[in-house]
Amino acid sequence: MTESLKPLDVASRLPRLRVRFDELGIDGLVVMNLTNVRYLTGFSGSAGVLAVTKDQAVLVTDGRYRTQSQLQVDEAGVHDLVTISIAGRNQNDEIDAVIKDCVHVGLEADEVTWSQVTRLQERMGREFVATSGAVEALREAKDAGEIDRMRRAAQIADEALEEVLPLMAATGSHPITESQFALALDSAMRKRGAEAVAFETIVAAGENSAKPHHHPSDRVICVGDPVVVDFGAMFEGYRSDMTRTFVVGGAPTGQLKEIFDLVAASQRAGVAAVKAGVEAKAVDDVCREVITEGGYAEQFEHSTGHGVGLDIHEAPWVSSAGTATLAPGFVVTVEPGVYVAGVGGVRIEDTLVVTENGAEALTKFTKEVAA
Amino acid sequence: MTESLKPLDVASRLPRLRVRFDELGIDGLVVMNLTNVRYLTGFSGSAGVLAVTKDQAVLVTDGRYRTQSQLQVDEAGVHDLVTISIAGRNQNDEIDAVIKDCVHVGLEADEVTWSQVTRLQERMGREFVATSGAVEALREAKDAGEIDRMRRAAQIADEALEEVLPLMAATGSHPITESQFALALDSAMRKRGAEAVAFETIVAAGENSAKPHHHPSDRVICVGDPVVVDFGAMFEGYRSDMTRTFVVGGAPTGQLKEIFDLVAASQRAGVAAVKAGVEAKAVDDVCREVITEGGYAEQFEHSTGHGVGLDIHEAPWVSSAGTATLAPGFVVTVEPGVYVAGVGGVRIEDTLVVTENGAEALTKFTKEVAA
Repeated sequence: MTESLKPLDVASRLPRLRVRFDELGIDGLVVMNLTNVRYLTGFSGSAGVLAVTKDQAVLVTDGRYRTQSQLQVDEAGVHDLVTISIAGRNQNDEIDAVIKDCVHVGLEADEVTWSQVTRLQERMGREFVATSGAVEALREAKDAGEIDRMRRAAQIADEALEEVLPLMAATGSHPITESQFALALDSAMRKRGAEAVAFETIVAAGENSAKPHHHPSDRVICVGDPVVVDFGAMFEGYRSDMTRTFVVGGAPTGQLKEIFDLVAASQRAGVAAVKAGVEAKAVDDVCREVITEGGYAEQFEHSTGHGVGLDIHEAPWVSSAGTATLAPGFVVTVEPGVYVAGVGGVRIEDTLVVTENGAEALTKFTKEVAA
Repeated sequence: MTESLKPLDVASRLPRLRVRFDELGIDGLVVMNLTNVRYLTGFSGSAGVLAVTKDQAVLVTDGRYRTQSQLQVDEAGVHDLVTISIAGRNQNDEIDAVIKDCVHVGLEADEVTWSQVTRLQERMGREFVATSGAVEALREAKDAGEIDRMRRAAQIADEALEEVLPLMAATGSHPITESQFALALDSAMRKRGAEAVAFETIVAAGENSAKPHHHPSDRVICVGDPVVVDFGAMFEGYRSDMTRTFVVGGAPTGQLKEIFDLVAASQRAGVAAVKAGVEAKAVDDVCREVITEGGYAEQFEHSTGHGVGLDIHEAPWVSSAGTATLAPGFVVTVEPGVYVAGVGGVRIEDTLVVTENGAEALTKFTKEVAA
């Protein structure tokens, strides 16, 4: 299937970044966030800084990455846009040389530490301009190649859950713990071609389901338990994110059923609200309204969603504080949840691509709750 | 076996930190590094800030961690030293209230971003003191409970490699790729009780072995290949780190044999040099000297080792720039390597606890090279 992936459009990214220079008040940018470096150059190593001016872009890395950096820059089709410089301990001198004629050089203020900026300013004898989200803003709208990779990641996750869900259903006769189920799911994703998990898989059974960020434990999954499974796959650097909540051996009853129905309704309303031109905040409002009307406002204690891509959490933020307006190609999650100590928790999440008229769900696993 | 683990001595840590306040020129410290927060309080959540003054310590976290934070602070035996404050969006106000009577408040300059420090200074109307390694210095010497957990992590890793190494030996009849071997190894660690891998497992076969930081790929491991396996387990937050290099189906010959012998000799010399009172730099010198005499100085392109504990890489640094003097309870790696493009690479690594008279290797897997 790999042949069918559309190519990544890496070559348009540096030009689009430079278009933003005036608005950002800079004539150069030192990119230290490695995900941003990868986005702009294709280089995925663990050490590298990209210095971008109006007419050049130099990727400074070290000897370990001599071969890999050239290979990846070539593969990304940006070898005529990006020069590679292999530096040892004089990395800062290399960067300094690239930006020497620039007046206002931006530095990613959310990425660089206080130590780093202090050291760099002293060493280079200049004040940097604090930038925030300069490259991240470009990353919000995914190109067709990126969406293909995220679709593949989501498909791997769907198929892996399909494979291992019977382990949960069979826990009555063959007991399985949260950790064992998480391991089985992670392994199933990797066997299907995930290069890694998108983030640490959450499997939260019974009383643990009431903790939104539970870490899988040795607790045995029991018949009757609600079980929250929140996980994703990484494929060629791109991630998927999906949550389903199951009830082992049947349907929920009593207050748990009320919560299941409410979260499902909230999530459907949120998904239906996603389309180009809508404010991210409005999607949070829609989800929250349904849950508030159901009387569980206090128990929906996190935001509705977030962007996904090369990072598992990235712009735009689908929250009450979100400022973005959704546009075609944005990829966001919608994941309301309600958590009641002593009863259980339910969260349902999909990863969606924003389109002109609505949204395409990349995560397609059934929302039937019986496991 | 869990019963046999010695307890962590968490309660002595805050007092030992406060003893350092004068030397650091502070009368308060805002700890944002989550590993440092965990070290000082036992709390392992993904969000929390610890404000420490001379007479109080307040852990500010959010509603998701209400139950977990109290449980972990109790378990760590520091409930009388640490107050928990559950804050929402007013987290900074809570911190501000704790430090309001302090004059010189430290902020971890290697942890806090430029944005964060700017925002905090504006919001709190004070200048912070940039600190570096204030808590990390305490973490260098492990207590008996920490060493027990690292010993367990290393043992899990040893046993997992023992289980899966036959897969490598059998690759002639049942081909296995780097990725598949890495997955088998990771799964074997988790089945034995590792809560996670200590870091992304490296499996580098044939020509890939010449790349120190190779990412496991779909390359099939072949008979005759040198294969570098660099991996570790995480147990109760503590990590192990071990590298072995194998030759599939027999012993190395020619230049590869020369490199194997040289790295093994260098690693033995480095291990023998580790003891209390020795400078970390001296261990690097010893390893490097053996390899330089063998004519491969340029091909040993990284430092000799690093501290290990709650982080996979932490102080002290065993490198030519290392400034630490080893002391009892320090845990460091010794991992020289030689990498020759077109021939292959060899790295051998153990995790060692420094003792008065030498070192105890936590990683005990054989250094026989035939797989």
